[in-house]
Amino acid sequence: MSDPIASPANSRIKALIRLRERRQRDATRTFIVEGYRELLRFADAGLAMRTLFICPELFVGVNESALVDRCRDSGAEIVEVGAVPFRKASYRDRPEGLLAVADQFDTGLDRIPLTGTPLVLVAESIEKPGNLGTMLRTAEAAGLSGVIVTDPTTDPYNPNVVRASLGTMFAVPIAIADTPSAIAHLRAVGLRIVATTPDATLPHYQADLRGPTALVIGSEQYGLSKLWLDAADTGVVIPMPGSVDSLNAAMAAGIIMFEAVRQRS
Amino acid sequence: MSDPIASPANSRIKALIRLRERRQRDATRTFIVEGYRELLRFADAGLAMRTLFICPELFVGVNESALVDRCRDSGAEIVEVGAVPFRKASYRDRPEGLLAVADQFDTGLDRIPLTGTPLVLVAESIEKPGNLGTMLRTAEAAGLSGVIVTDPTTDPYNPNVVRASLGTMFAVPIAIADTPSAIAHLRAVGLRIVATTPDATLPHYQADLRGPTALVIGSEQYGLSKLWLDAADTGVVIPMPGSVDSLNAAMAAGIIMFEAVRQRS
Repeated sequence: MSDPIASPANSRIKALIRLRERRQRDATRTFIVEGYRELLRFADAGLAMRTLFICPELFVGVNESALVDRCRDSGAEIVEVGAVPFRKASYRDRPEGLLAVADQFDTGLDRIPLTGTPLVLVAESIEKPGNLGTMLRTAEAAGLSGVIVTDPTTDPYNPNVVRASLGTMFAVPIAIADTPSAIAHLRAVGLRIVATTPDATLPHYQADLRGPTALVIGSEQYGLSKLWLDAADTGVVIPMPGSVDSLNAAMAAGIIMFEAVRQRS
Repeated sequence: MSDPIASPANSRIKALIRLRERRQRDATRTFIVEGYRELLRFADAGLAMRTLFICPELFVGVNESALVDRCRDSGAEIVEVGAVPFRKASYRDRPEGLLAVADQFDTGLDRIPLTGTPLVLVAESIEKPGNLGTMLRTAEAAGLSGVIVTDPTTDPYNPNVVRASLGTMFAVPIAIADTPSAIAHLRAVGLRIVATTPDATLPHYQADLRGPTALVIGSEQYGLSKLWLDAADTGVVIPMPGSVDSLNAAMAAGIIMFEAVRQRS
């Protein structure tokens, strides 16, 4: 390994910082995975990274070296970085000394497996990276077949999505599509479209979620688009004894996903 | 009204910044409520603020003036602040020109009403303000009788708790207590203690949550303490077909609260 990168003005450090911008991620078809847990899950998912930037003096645990070896063995370039430039490249307050550049993965609709009785979450135009990351994390916990991100306002490769998902997003199939394509796909493969909307009267727990189902959640600010509301086989509402605007989008998604888990148990 | 505060070095601006620290909040028994939605809910809850700092040039809507008038009528001192010092005092990236100092409210255990069939959330030593705020927000949506925050690592008056709750925390009774006091209180008033723990075998949806119930959630990192596990009438687990560590504490709380709502419907 060559000498550690010592300057925050190093061109590779600058390139890492640029990857915080979606435009740059889209142009290079790459994204950043930072942190031990996130990279472990990335590696466990069998995904390959291009480059792993490490700063051993920032390591917080004892298992980092094993992970670095594993990444090296799977073909990643390992680049050592001094603490000052690493902190500059890091997206975190307390960097853990591990930050990788990875290729964006395939996000075609055919990535969602249709084995068994599929249960899919559709997240339309979610704005807040934390909400999208939490949805992906919760979908993974609920054992969903996959998540379709439609008309993304926030792309799943946003560093805050990766972070909020704790890397669990690498363990759940993710597709990205525009809404008409997603609707056509769900119809073609025979999934029932269940739209979550405050305008519905059917409580989510009275809808039958045991068959092949797509649960559709709209954006924080605007809810579901007319396209989804029109395409839905049924609309459901999460009854709220308190204020009706008091559930955030990720929480609403989690409640309905785990209601489906309950019904299927 | 006197001239607007023009300097970021003004002593009142400095005092606002110090209230970001818990020590200072505890010492003064005050806290900060920032933002239009948050302050509207604060006023709707009938709570009184000491001082409302305003910066009209930062107002984003058209209803701010009415809210300012309402606060003035209820006895708040109104202090105008220039944009530069306001931005310094604000905890937000995009300040909305409204920031109040309010007295901390009563958080005794007897604040939780016991009318009807009480349903209470107990949150033990939650670390992340965002999680505690989301729990309060979700508890309000679920129409809970109240939330008991035990042995707080993060106090409910933390500005990020207020923010994550969107001010809904002012609409749900909150008590703060140490764990032994909370357990003694719940027993004395006859609530069944249901502890959420990955070590339980009973799925949360198979537990009967229709009676007077306290749902207990532990901290993000350590889960529930032995005190709560020993005191529980029953333990429940949220079954996860995916990875077992993939639900965050606020999401777990939301799923079990809305399961109780379902059972009680």
